[in-house]
Amino acid sequence: MRIALDAMGGDYAPGPIVAGAVQAVAADPALELVLVGDQGRVEPLLAEAGSARDRIEIFHCSQVVAMDESPVEALRRKPDSSIGRCWQLLAEKKVEAMVSAGNTGAVVAGGLLRRRFLKNVRRPGIAAVMPTLRGPCVIVDVGANVAPEPQHLFQYGVMGSIFARTMLQREKPTIGLMNVGEEEKKGHDLAKETHALFNASPLRQQFIGNIEGRDIHKGRCDVVVTDGFVGNVILKVCEGVFEFVMKMVSQEVLGRLEVERSRASEAIESLIGRYDYSEQGGAPLLGIDGICIICHGSSGDRAIKNALSVAAKYAQARLNERIVQELEATLPPTN
Amino acid sequence: MRIALDAMGGDYAPGPIVAGAVQAVAADPALELVLVGDQGRVEPLLAEAGSARDRIEIFHCSQVVAMDESPVEALRRKPDSSIGRCWQLLAEKKVEAMVSAGNTGAVVAGGLLRRRFLKNVRRPGIAAVMPTLRGPCVIVDVGANVAPEPQHLFQYGVMGSIFARTMLQREKPTIGLMNVGEEEKKGHDLAKETHALFNASPLRQQFIGNIEGRDIHKGRCDVVVTDGFVGNVILKVCEGVFEFVMKMVSQEVLGRLEVERSRASEAIESLIGRYDYSEQGGAPLLGIDGICIICHGSSGDRAIKNALSVAAKYAQARLNERIVQELEATLPPTN
Repeated sequence: MRIALDAMGGDYAPGPIVAGAVQAVAADPALELVLVGDQGRVEPLLAEAGSARDRIEIFHCSQVVAMDESPVEALRRKPDSSIGRCWQLLAEKKVEAMVSAGNTGAVVAGGLLRRRFLKNVRRPGIAAVMPTLRGPCVIVDVGANVAPEPQHLFQYGVMGSIFARTMLQREKPTIGLMNVGEEEKKGHDLAKETHALFNASPLRQQFIGNIEGRDIHKGRCDVVVTDGFVGNVILKVCEGVFEFVMKMVSQEVLGRLEVERSRASEAIESLIGRYDYSEQGGAPLLGIDGICIICHGSSGDRAIKNALSVAAKYAQARLNERIVQELEATLPPTN
Repeated sequence: MRIALDAMGGDYAPGPIVAGAVQAVAADPALELVLVGDQGRVEPLLAEAGSARDRIEIFHCSQVVAMDESPVEALRRKPDSSIGRCWQLLAEKKVEAMVSAGNTGAVVAGGLLRRRFLKNVRRPGIAAVMPTLRGPCVIVDVGANVAPEPQHLFQYGVMGSIFARTMLQREKPTIGLMNVGEEEKKGHDLAKETHALFNASPLRQQFIGNIEGRDIHKGRCDVVVTDGFVGNVILKVCEGVFEFVMKMVSQEVLGRLEVERSRASEAIESLIGRYDYSEQGGAPLLGIDGICIICHGSSGDRAIKNALSVAAKYAQARLNERIVQELEATLPPTN
């Protein structure tokens, strides 16, 4: 498996990005990496890569899209950016996958500009895995498409369902539509029209209807379908609440303990580590012809290593082939 | 202060609603209540009210809007519903405030049907108080208006700012617009247009621009402005994540302790109690001529008692007078 890794993308790049790359290559003998970035900065970071160095190539590029740049403008103004070059390698089939912790909007925009979508895909969507009381669920979209049409959301259901089956081992994943209440007529037009699309589709057996915000972490469904604006807010609100609650817990619980304070503190640290969103393995942009994994901007080496292994699993699962097959089967006759 | 309380609204009504009413009247000698509901069911619950009974009146009505009914239809089909009668009492100025834990959509719809808005208010919005690392913030709207215009969101900023000043004691509240990134050009058209409205208004000194989901609980601003769809999802996601994290903490932390397990357990219970969303004091529907407090459907007696005291504080703060004054002052010249 050959993957292009955006060495310049992320709040702390290239240090932890390259470190994660070296770890991933050392751990997986079948992995080859193309580090896309400034050769002068990347090369020295590979000094201690040892034998892993043989399977790491550097693709030099001179520009970087900053984390706060306007995506489309930046890509146009910087033809030699690391994100642009990763997309180029993917488009030219020189790599099977690309991984970036850079400007999420620019990664998505790169895909949209090249329009390398799988057959019948209207718009790609980012799939993020979330913990729940009944094991992980997947939520699509968390930020690629902030003003989608009902048909886009329906396709996120199809793709999310395949993701849940192949990556989360759910035999027949249930699909819920994020809304402000359970009743069919709730919400804005987008929600009502999407609800109708699911009910008129072959997915209606898996579709449990509307869900509310509190249902996600209860694990009421395996796939949460929502627009990229709401999904992005959800993802980041979860991050914020988690951080808030763990701080409260640390203060209040540890403050009352004497003898077993360090034991409790270890348990809290272990929980924080397990659910640290910046250490998650990255979220795939579903619907792209090829594999594109988007990582949290504050990704550390472990997150990058995880993302690279997610890309490999994604390829093994032949997710894209299934997406093409199943989208074909769920196309409404009018399309 | 005279308040109409929807005795039939809520998952467990009328039991805990009436119990909360009795406690509130006993605690506040200036409070008079009109319990709106089925006299045959409410009257027996007042048997042990003692001297508080003198300040509790029953307004009999024969119908109830169920929690899962379609709001507008239900209100039209049930002219003698407890929610409809509460609005009538408010409109006729027979009470200063109404409080309901019933179908939120129906409470809001009751206000919209009567169009009892304060001068210049385009659409009312629900204001919910959220805990943050820097003290409480207020988020408007959390569900009254799922498809707002930019001007509506701007007014939520004005009203939320007054709420933060008078109810949360923030001298010059900062206002943030919920979006998917901090940059000015991020998000959908609604977000971009609202951003421009704030920057062109007298509130621009207080406006900190776009915020992201994770900023709420960090306490980055005092007022979070968002549409009712996103706000409702945020509110309920917070509830879900909080419940999820506290369950994880209980399992993992308590599981490792022996000697001080009960101490830690007490601390956890106290935290859960403090942030239990179903025990919060209710959220005002801002922009209404009168006071309307909306409670969580699963409100217990304590939540109802809190909501009644919030209504009283709200009246004392003369929030509505300030809203009228300040909306006038912030009206764009084109309006």
